[in-house]
Amino acid sequence: MSSLDEFGLIRMLTEGKQPESLLRAGGVETGIGDDAAVAEATPGMRLVMTCDTMNEDIHFKRITMRDADIGFKAMASAVSDIAAMGGIPRYALISLSMPKGTEPERVRSIYDGLYESAARWNVMVVGGDTTSCTGGISLGVTVIGEVEPGRALLRSAARPGDAVFATGLLGRSSAGLDLLLNRAIPAGNWGSFDPQEEALVQAHCRPEPQVNAGRLLLESGMCRALNDISDGLASEAWEVAEASGVGIDLVEDRIPVADELYAYAARQGKDPMDYILYGGEDYQLVGTVPAGQALELQLRCKAAGVPLHIIGCVTGEAPGVRLVQSSGFLLNLGKRGYNHFAEEGG
Amino acid sequence: MSSLDEFGLIRMLTEGKQPESLLRAGGVETGIGDDAAVAEATPGMRLVMTCDTMNEDIHFKRITMRDADIGFKAMASAVSDIAAMGGIPRYALISLSMPKGTEPERVRSIYDGLYESAARWNVMVVGGDTTSCTGGISLGVTVIGEVEPGRALLRSAARPGDAVFATGLLGRSSAGLDLLLNRAIPAGNWGSFDPQEEALVQAHCRPEPQVNAGRLLLESGMCRALNDISDGLASEAWEVAEASGVGIDLVEDRIPVADELYAYAARQGKDPMDYILYGGEDYQLVGTVPAGQALELQLRCKAAGVPLHIIGCVTGEAPGVRLVQSSGFLLNLGKRGYNHFAEEGG
Repeated sequence: MSSLDEFGLIRMLTEGKQPESLLRAGGVETGIGDDAAVAEATPGMRLVMTCDTMNEDIHFKRITMRDADIGFKAMASAVSDIAAMGGIPRYALISLSMPKGTEPERVRSIYDGLYESAARWNVMVVGGDTTSCTGGISLGVTVIGEVEPGRALLRSAARPGDAVFATGLLGRSSAGLDLLLNRAIPAGNWGSFDPQEEALVQAHCRPEPQVNAGRLLLESGMCRALNDISDGLASEAWEVAEASGVGIDLVEDRIPVADELYAYAARQGKDPMDYILYGGEDYQLVGTVPAGQALELQLRCKAAGVPLHIIGCVTGEAPGVRLVQSSGFLLNLGKRGYNHFAEEGG
Repeated sequence: MSSLDEFGLIRMLTEGKQPESLLRAGGVETGIGDDAAVAEATPGMRLVMTCDTMNEDIHFKRITMRDADIGFKAMASAVSDIAAMGGIPRYALISLSMPKGTEPERVRSIYDGLYESAARWNVMVVGGDTTSCTGGISLGVTVIGEVEPGRALLRSAARPGDAVFATGLLGRSSAGLDLLLNRAIPAGNWGSFDPQEEALVQAHCRPEPQVNAGRLLLESGMCRALNDISDGLASEAWEVAEASGVGIDLVEDRIPVADELYAYAARQGKDPMDYILYGGEDYQLVGTVPAGQALELQLRCKAAGVPLHIIGCVTGEAPGVRLVQSSGFLLNLGKRGYNHFAEEGG
């Protein structure tokens, strides 16, 4: 891209994506093109801030994500952190590092995906920088949002006696990754999948952060702890357990398994729980609610079209996470990694 | 760092750096450790947001910066963008990508530098992420600050008849880089320099963003355009010229040359203007002020201990930047790169 300086490149990538009128309505006073962006903050609200970086050959490969997916998912992943606080995402800054010789078409597709994702969650892209690097592509997204003072939903708020819930279906993203790695489709040659496979691939490449669910949970006043599921259910439950100083029992029979996950795991000779507990990047939410309010919260979510599954309970045990297996066995779940899964306890 | 998970690593890098009491006083409600940070925004102020990424072997090498310098400078560079808007930096998010096998001591030093820089400009470090990558170390810093509504100092506000000013001394950072590249001191073996060389090295490794100057310029009500000097004076003047649709004439005799730069350039057989116009990373500010108010602004800055040099004027010519040489020649300055420097015009 030798013929473009940084400004020319940024103009090519961003021009016409979010019109001035949209940015104004979104609270942006000065967007891309100056030293920094200037935008309004809603009076009386607190800022919620997060950043997430996705690196080539670590978080994605050319055989597991199309370029537009990389952009879509990087934005979705940062937005998910805001959702996990019960916040409203508002502004994003993009940091793109790429090796010399990167095809402009690749970068353009990444930005298309970023903007598609931004539009989906009503995020205004207000700035960023593009630089060279010696490794693969690195895409960092910072999202700045808002939340009511003192209302942010923290990992540390779970209490013994709470019920544990999860929004949506888990494990599909990591099954989708598995499928794509096994298939090893050359970049640019993305084929078609049967509908069940497509659902897994979609879950991996186009995850949907649960912004509406997060807001609903905050506004309900019933939700205690909340966390997004970026690293698998076992690992995220561990985060809540450690931050809150509680134990968490997950009940195997209560964890919903998507048909497509069930079918794929069966074909691979694996337990769907492998994907659910130790997969990752589902970007659903896991949280807790006082047990006496669990049904009310579930009904309120149902009315709003947000699936909420009660999948376990919070115990007074020392921090730790157990799986109550269908057989009745209590399995101690390790913090992360497939290798811990075989460890038995109870 | 195989024995540490991401949480353990982040705890090692951040614990004890900014005590809870400091963070509270700085407006932080929830800092590092949850999905996102929560912090206050000052009522009635606008947000100012920017991010900057520094990549190994592109923005720094082990022979040009010690590890702590990398952290210090990455933070300083993002803070400088806030300064260039006349804003007050408040919160920072850190994104660190590193190759597997990176020594923990290296990462710890980078974070020491980040926090030293943050303390210097009163920035609260509220979050971030650490990940692996296949290339060299990549350090991204997002800074979120504040500015009075409608008062941010933009690049586009220069008008014909304005005087052009610069804060502080220019070209020293790039002379320092030159010196370090020539000296090629092995990492970890950083020697000593004579006082003049040390000043150049310091300017390169520990730049000082002009936050106070930026605030003073905004509060004066006299400053029109403002830009920080990250890419050399010629390039930054070009940005102002293009954004404002004006011409800028820089007067060679009015551009101050630091003694140490003069001495170093002489030893290298170079013109100090090479470093000033086409060097970079000085993180001083260049801006414009109505000519009739230039002296008053200069005196006000002097009283506050901020050097302000009047170095040129804004013309009605088509966008472009010229150097009025001591000889009287008008030299058209290219946007960037040493290769443009020889081009004559006028």
